[in-house]
Amino acid sequence: PEVVRLAVIPGDGIGPEVVAATVPALRSALEAEGHRLDVTSYDWGGERYLRQGAAMPADAADLVKQADAVLFGAVGRPDVPEHELVWGLIIGLRQQLDLAVNLRPVRAFPGVPTKVRDTDGVDLVIVRENTEGEYVGAGGMAHAGSGHDLGIEVAVHSRRAIERAAHQAFALAGRRSGHLCLVTKSNAMRYGYPLWDRVVREVGEHYPAVRLETVLVDAMAARMIQDPRSLDVLLASNLFGDILSDLAAVLAGGMGMAPSANVLPGADVPGVYEPVHGSAPDIAGKGVANPVACMLSGAMLLDDLGHAGAARRVRDAVAATLRDTRHHTADLGGDASTAEVASAVLHTM
Amino acid sequence: PEVVRLAVIPGDGIGPEVVAATVPALRSALEAEGHRLDVTSYDWGGERYLRQGAAMPADAADLVKQADAVLFGAVGRPDVPEHELVWGLIIGLRQQLDLAVNLRPVRAFPGVPTKVRDTDGVDLVIVRENTEGEYVGAGGMAHAGSGHDLGIEVAVHSRRAIERAAHQAFALAGRRSGHLCLVTKSNAMRYGYPLWDRVVREVGEHYPAVRLETVLVDAMAARMIQDPRSLDVLLASNLFGDILSDLAAVLAGGMGMAPSANVLPGADVPGVYEPVHGSAPDIAGKGVANPVACMLSGAMLLDDLGHAGAARRVRDAVAATLRDTRHHTADLGGDASTAEVASAVLHTM
Ligand SMILES: CC(C)[C@H](C(=O)O)[C@@H](O)C(=O)O
Ligand SMILES: CC(C)[C@H](C(=O)O)[C@@H](O)C(=O)O
Repeated sequence: PEVVRLAVIPGDGIGPEVVAATVPALRSALEAEGHRLDVTSYDWGGERYLRQGAAMPADAADLVKQADAVLFGAVGRPDVPEHELVWGLIIGLRQQLDLAVNLRPVRAFPGVPTKVRDTDGVDLVIVRENTEGEYVGAGGMAHAGSGHDLGIEVAVHSRRAIERAAHQAFALAGRRSGHLCLVTKSNAMRYGYPLWDRVVREVGEHYPAVRLETVLVDAMAARMIQDPRSLDVLLASNLFGDILSDLAAVLAGGMGMAPSANVLPGADVPGVYEPVHGSAPDIAGKGVANPVACMLSGAMLLDDLGHAGAARRVRDAVAATLRDTRHHTADLGGDASTAEVASAVLHTM
Repeated sequence: PEVVRLAVIPGDGIGPEVVAATVPALRSALEAEGHRLDVTSYDWGGERYLRQGAAMPADAADLVKQADAVLFGAVGRPDVPEHELVWGLIIGLRQQLDLAVNLRPVRAFPGVPTKVRDTDGVDLVIVRENTEGEYVGAGGMAHAGSGHDLGIEVAVHSRRAIERAAHQAFALAGRRSGHLCLVTKSNAMRYGYPLWDRVVREVGEHYPAVRLETVLVDAMAARMIQDPRSLDVLLASNLFGDILSDLAAVLAGGMGMAPSANVLPGADVPGVYEPVHGSAPDIAGKGVANPVACMLSGAMLLDDLGHAGAARRVRDAVAATLRDTRHHTADLGGDASTAEVASAVLHTM
């Protein structure tokens, strides 16, 4: 029997609620396969920021490196400046652990209503570069306060980061449909996105079985809704991956359905698994949040640790649960509580 | 009787086809109101680039300034590098004429099928900053060709440009629902978008009757599809406006339905009116392009020149035509030709 050492960061808002719904499902799935789950929980997030002036400790990256993987809920609360939690925690962890890619799969589950017609069979993955691009925090202000202020944002796209993400995307596309869509905006931006086009084409030479298509981000936004079944694996920069993954979640019923994995493949660094949704302060504390995105993030975590059997148990139980509309939370048009969904998943497993 | 002096740039691909379908409708609408249309056509675009090495002449901006307004089809052809036509024509004209905002209305027409459920009554406008942001063309390469290449994109957001766009957006929201959504990404980008948040809030103090809501671009992408009727006027940067307007077009049936106006309100500079779609080389020359986006761009043009009656004639005729699915082009699931739609609109007018 193996022991999975899990670091858990419940965070703020609905974060703790969806994490509390997920951990028992992961434990039960692992135990059914003869393994064990060992959980260390960290109180990082907005409350810690208010108490101690920092959302996480300076040695946070070292602490989570003792675990096999990290399950992250959500951070953000109205009384804390958002950038303190984003840079002090989410983006901070991604960049400090150098988690090269953010994998954001979107799959339509039978029985779940969507605002988009004909989503049956939608099953795509966004491979998002996760360490740089528009998220490097570079830039500055000129003429600040003069009435002629300029805000300057500098995005940095490196061959190294593009290559890392591209190899993941091509390998994944090779294991799936053999079709990869690169999303850039090289007709308007002249340096970073043309470099993406060039480097990804070069990496593609190592994957002759994968067909590479390059699509402008504006056209992709429309196509994501108009023709999602024409898509399988998407490769995108940090910013475009962010926008497209929220959009893609709509195909599965919304943000409550979208899991993600921040990973550095091939390295001995724990991945950070998190629902794509945020802390949703408006519904926090009411016990009505949809825990599915977090549960599916947990399934990705199990998969990546080599526990495919346990991962399948979680995913199958989620799918079976969602088939019954009585187990749909408010975001899906139902009235089930978070706890009801959690218990339905556990009992189906 | 007034004479409207129209400069026409049909451009490439389906551009000439949709422009040819539109000009007679504008003429007929103006004549019905006792006015006249005077057209000067410019052969700018990809063919000119191949012939003369430039998509438009150096004095293009001066030439079109002799007109009251410009109707632009589309540019882009597979055998010309896209940036030559984009920077040499579309972005070139927008920036040389200093056309501060790009207005992109999206309205669901009864009878037009959409991939999104419940789009009845969708009626929103994206006010896109049109001169700077991610579209300034600034940046460069470092370590080019070394294997450690860096592509650096610099986006510039100025108080002046934000203020101009914000005044338009607030004034428009004041004439409509009194609700304005500003779209930024200030949790990840630290300079340009926080400046947007600040300046737009300040401008808002002059419009106490308008409620300002600030939404992150990723959340807005999802909301655009999940809950479009919660939106009326959106204010966005050049890049976010680009992405969101293609997406919003889906609510109206796709890119064939989305008009736009590049304008500098309050100045004696001709606006450039163009369908949001591109040159669509795949269907060019077949006579099957949807001319509605171009026709509705023409209606915006008439409106802005003070010909509200003629504009209404065009719009009403388009709406009446679209009610009959026999007049739907292929993009709307029909088999009508461009010419059939054009003639139906003319006969309805
Ligand atoms: C909180 C925010 C900075 C983050 C992002 O933009 O990456 C979030 O939207 C996400 O998608 O994980
Ligand atoms: C052609 C391209 C540069 C342009 C843009 O990005 O502005 C187009 O997509 C548009 O929306 O008008």
